[in-house]
Amino acid sequence: MITSTKNQQIRTVIELKKKAKARNESGLFAVEGIRMAAELPKERIEQVYVSESFLKHPEHSSVLGRLPSFEIVSDSVFSTMSDTKTPQGILALVKKREYTLEEMLAGGQTPFLMLLENLQDPGNLGTIVRAGEGAGITGVIMSRDTVDIYNPKVIRSTMGSLFRIPFLYAENLGETVRFLKKNHVKILAAHLEGAVVYDEEDCTGALGFLIGNEGNGLSEEIGALADARIKIPMAGQVESLNAAVAASVLMFETARQRRKRS
Amino acid sequence: MITSTKNQQIRTVIELKKKAKARNESGLFAVEGIRMAAELPKERIEQVYVSESFLKHPEHSSVLGRLPSFEIVSDSVFSTMSDTKTPQGILALVKKREYTLEEMLAGGQTPFLMLLENLQDPGNLGTIVRAGEGAGITGVIMSRDTVDIYNPKVIRSTMGSLFRIPFLYAENLGETVRFLKKNHVKILAAHLEGAVVYDEEDCTGALGFLIGNEGNGLSEEIGALADARIKIPMAGQVESLNAAVAASVLMFETARQRRKRS
Repeated sequence: MITSTKNQQIRTVIELKKKAKARNESGLFAVEGIRMAAELPKERIEQVYVSESFLKHPEHSSVLGRLPSFEIVSDSVFSTMSDTKTPQGILALVKKREYTLEEMLAGGQTPFLMLLENLQDPGNLGTIVRAGEGAGITGVIMSRDTVDIYNPKVIRSTMGSLFRIPFLYAENLGETVRFLKKNHVKILAAHLEGAVVYDEEDCTGALGFLIGNEGNGLSEEIGALADARIKIPMAGQVESLNAAVAASVLMFETARQRRKRS
Repeated sequence: MITSTKNQQIRTVIELKKKAKARNESGLFAVEGIRMAAELPKERIEQVYVSESFLKHPEHSSVLGRLPSFEIVSDSVFSTMSDTKTPQGILALVKKREYTLEEMLAGGQTPFLMLLENLQDPGNLGTIVRAGEGAGITGVIMSRDTVDIYNPKVIRSTMGSLFRIPFLYAENLGETVRFLKKNHVKILAAHLEGAVVYDEEDCTGALGFLIGNEGNGLSEEIGALADARIKIPMAGQVESLNAAVAASVLMFETARQRRKRS
């Protein structure tokens, strides 16, 4: 049992939680909680840590039974690794996995992509991945300057969708958008001054929505690549919606149209 | 100028930010930031505090010119009052204002209400108020055990909508729902096992959406009062949406239907 916070493994976990750089160098990220542990693809698990009290709890034997092996950690050491106030007592180091654009488009489904430029709020990114799975998206493509999807706050707010929705960071988002357009994916940019009301666009074909940064929206360069700029009409004095809310409204309108057509 | 954090006024501000009880007893709440300060209804402002550096900035004279009076506070004292890492330097104490159900229904618009049972996350409540204004809701009714709408995190995430959208805490949410039904408001409950897909309900008439607690959903008692239980169909393995996302999808579907009809 690990009983010291100075233990090298524990230090590594803390580094991986705090720093995108550590995650990039090792190719690993940390995932916490019993629900997440139950959803982890086995072949990607590098190491699992459980707290003493987690181990003693009879209800946890089925989760533990799924795991190839695990390290036991004292409760106090576990709480230094955890970023929640009441840790559940299970944390895994998992191998990162990125998809290629080709893989993302090869699924046989009509493409339904979210293209995110410089999104900064971890909760927004996580919420888009989670709601996106519910709406039937086929992938998430992010500009390099978007928040790290392996940030613990993103992971937590995806509620497991992170392991099911393909995603990638595009070296050059503009090039990726041009590639998608050549491949007959219609690109719609969410824009406060959009010319078209969002539900008047046909969303039943191959589609990608461009969503911009929380404060600044889409860059001119990326926005100009879209086939159309769409807006969500606003009542009252609201200028804009939270990025995750705007994305969700667009995603579920797409799901609605596809349901009606089928 | 106030230069000590022991000053009674500063202590009061900190209490009002931290504790719902202090807000209830005084009938005041604290609002931070230049944008919020610009949107405050003048007659509800009790006191305004500005930091030394805020005062010196030439661009701030128009905001300050609107205010009847203000207290100057040293930068270090200001940062103890603030709950952001980089405070903007302006904070107001504002008189609380609750609406009555009668006022909420008297506006002449077709009622479009959000009925929230025991919502706990301040960001969710704030997001619903903000997105709700954008979707054209006419009010928010909350059960008594819902998070305090004057919580600083709620206020921040409403982005000013708090001052424009009528809201109230219902002593007994069940009774309020019954009253609304008698007054021909259709009540739709968001429910994971809803019988009706949400966009198949007519949302163009007088309408209230019931949204339940983040972890547990709606209570049996309240859910049973609804005219229909509606669901948002989910692809993938997603069990539920974040409460603010689910509410937003329902609110903007309502806005869409009302736009189409008009």
